[in-house]
Amino acid sequence: MTRQAFHTAGIVGLGVIGASLGMAIKNSCPDIRVWGKDKDESMRSQALEMGVIDDWLDPEQLADCDLLILCTPLEFMQDVLEDLLPQLRPGTVISDVGSVKGPVMKLFRDMLPGGIHYIGGHPLAGSEKGGLLAADAFLFENAAYVLTPSDSCPHEVLASLSELIKAIGARVVIMSPREHDDLVARVSHVPHLIASVLMHQLQDEGDLSMAGGGLRDMTRIAASDVSLWTNILLFNQPAVLEALHNTQQHLESFIRALKQQDKEELTFLLEQAGERRRQMPRSRACLDDAADLVAIIPDRPGTLGLVTTILGEAGINIHDIQIMSVRDEDEGTIRITVAPEQAPKALLLLKSQGITAWARMI
Amino acid sequence: MTRQAFHTAGIVGLGVIGASLGMAIKNSCPDIRVWGKDKDESMRSQALEMGVIDDWLDPEQLADCDLLILCTPLEFMQDVLEDLLPQLRPGTVISDVGSVKGPVMKLFRDMLPGGIHYIGGHPLAGSEKGGLLAADAFLFENAAYVLTPSDSCPHEVLASLSELIKAIGARVVIMSPREHDDLVARVSHVPHLIASVLMHQLQDEGDLSMAGGGLRDMTRIAASDVSLWTNILLFNQPAVLEALHNTQQHLESFIRALKQQDKEELTFLLEQAGERRRQMPRSRACLDDAADLVAIIPDRPGTLGLVTTILGEAGINIHDIQIMSVRDEDEGTIRITVAPEQAPKALLLLKSQGITAWARMI
Repeated sequence: MTRQAFHTAGIVGLGVIGASLGMAIKNSCPDIRVWGKDKDESMRSQALEMGVIDDWLDPEQLADCDLLILCTPLEFMQDVLEDLLPQLRPGTVISDVGSVKGPVMKLFRDMLPGGIHYIGGHPLAGSEKGGLLAADAFLFENAAYVLTPSDSCPHEVLASLSELIKAIGARVVIMSPREHDDLVARVSHVPHLIASVLMHQLQDEGDLSMAGGGLRDMTRIAASDVSLWTNILLFNQPAVLEALHNTQQHLESFIRALKQQDKEELTFLLEQAGERRRQMPRSRACLDDAADLVAIIPDRPGTLGLVTTILGEAGINIHDIQIMSVRDEDEGTIRITVAPEQAPKALLLLKSQGITAWARMI
Repeated sequence: MTRQAFHTAGIVGLGVIGASLGMAIKNSCPDIRVWGKDKDESMRSQALEMGVIDDWLDPEQLADCDLLILCTPLEFMQDVLEDLLPQLRPGTVISDVGSVKGPVMKLFRDMLPGGIHYIGGHPLAGSEKGGLLAADAFLFENAAYVLTPSDSCPHEVLASLSELIKAIGARVVIMSPREHDDLVARVSHVPHLIASVLMHQLQDEGDLSMAGGGLRDMTRIAASDVSLWTNILLFNQPAVLEALHNTQQHLESFIRALKQQDKEELTFLLEQAGERRRQMPRSRACLDDAADLVAIIPDRPGTLGLVTTILGEAGINIHDIQIMSVRDEDEGTIRITVAPEQAPKALLLLKSQGITAWARMI
């Protein structure tokens, strides 16, 4: 098998996914030249300054792209493809990052001439924040990245794209468009719709002001881009409806147990859900084995620096840090995640500075 | 109105809420002596070391408590109260932190003799992590703390308890038990149950491994203490069933729009949800006006210290910091939240160290 490496990659659409992809490729594969463009020309200077792309992608460079990744919303995909088509040369590999794969694969199949290879793509990473400024070079770290290759796609082309995706830190998962669309209905589209339903069932501003962390986290994605999501749900309508039907039935089971005050059944249902949740892999592989330290520190300029410097100078790498709660101009609680074998030493160091701290299991 | 201050407070039950409450009172009201106990005697030394309480609460001290806060799960409340009752003296104020107020107020009304004042309480703060080690002195900062005073409770007693709650940083909200129970059904109990339903509608381990941030956040609370939640749902059964019925109807509206491929209606429903979500107050008041900086830094021991020290030395207070993504032993992206007026200076400082950074709207 000949390995076909990409020397040039073009990114069409510099929203949060496209821009993050540009940053990630530039970062992980310095040998690949990254061109990018957006229908909004005003993004050009910002994209260059942020290091999202090496150069703006002009039409005459399209023929020089080994790989073209369409990062535009689903409903514009056809128009964008029609626009690009005249400039493409045989041998180019086309991929996309659309959230529904069936319709995109049909579009590629119907529109692309022979000789242009296509592989559907969908990184399961994102943000409720959109746009260039929300870009993150490490968005794809440990994220699943689904590829749906066409039947006619040469094996070495799939291998090259897989290699690139692994290079930016993602896990390649290969499946059929149908499998993918059913899966994202369950793990993404139904949750999204449910987040909106949860907002609808709230009564008024009084309810909003009483929202705790749970409700807040559960409805965060309800504030996502409406047009994007309307299209995702409609493009994946059959799979979403099926998954919603299934969701309704599970909801009915809970309601039945509650109506009958069936404590045993309710316990069973909650336990099953909890067990499954605990089996969900943590989002960052490197945190699989980690220890949490909690410390109370004064919330004054420099204190965070003191704490992190003390640990850093002792060779202790902070995997994660979170300001759990804070009182303005007063003390705050922080959570610091370190490797388990470094936790006792870190704890001693913090205590030696007069900082109240303890270890917490995760 | 005479202000009745509390000199001594007893906390019964040192789970995450009780222990956090102890820490918070000790922290904010150094004049109040905090006693605490748990049926698990082995917690004694850890609770003292963590600064959760001043002393273990022995039965003979009960008569000396001006304020007693029951922080035990709902189903044990009656037993605990029976246990305490013989030692209580008239004038003592009793409160609790139970998630359902109707049944607790009935218990207090039925069991407590005249002269012992009672006010139901419920801080809308918590954690899916339970137990003493999850305690956080600042858990109640800006959290809503509902009080449901009894009809017979003197005004000055309510004023004293309100004052204490404000001192630990929470917002006092006074309502009737019925209003409270209806409200928490919507903002807490239905979301909790829905998180479990979402776990049930997933198909297998394959689904779990593909979970992105949205699903992860939406199902976090599905891993909470099952026995605690079974009881909360059963204690608040009528209100939860009503709220669930309402939730089902909103879900039906979404399903109808999707079935009919009614793009306009689907857009409208998602927009309404999004608008409402954006009206939800941020969890920390002090962050209402803040700027986010995103920086790419090498993930090596000490780098975080360098960044935070640079900003600290320049008098820039970091309100929040989050490691957005990280590649083990490689670079990572961090988000730093500062006051908007300090953002340009902070950005310049980071750039002067050769760190790629930009500002992001929040």
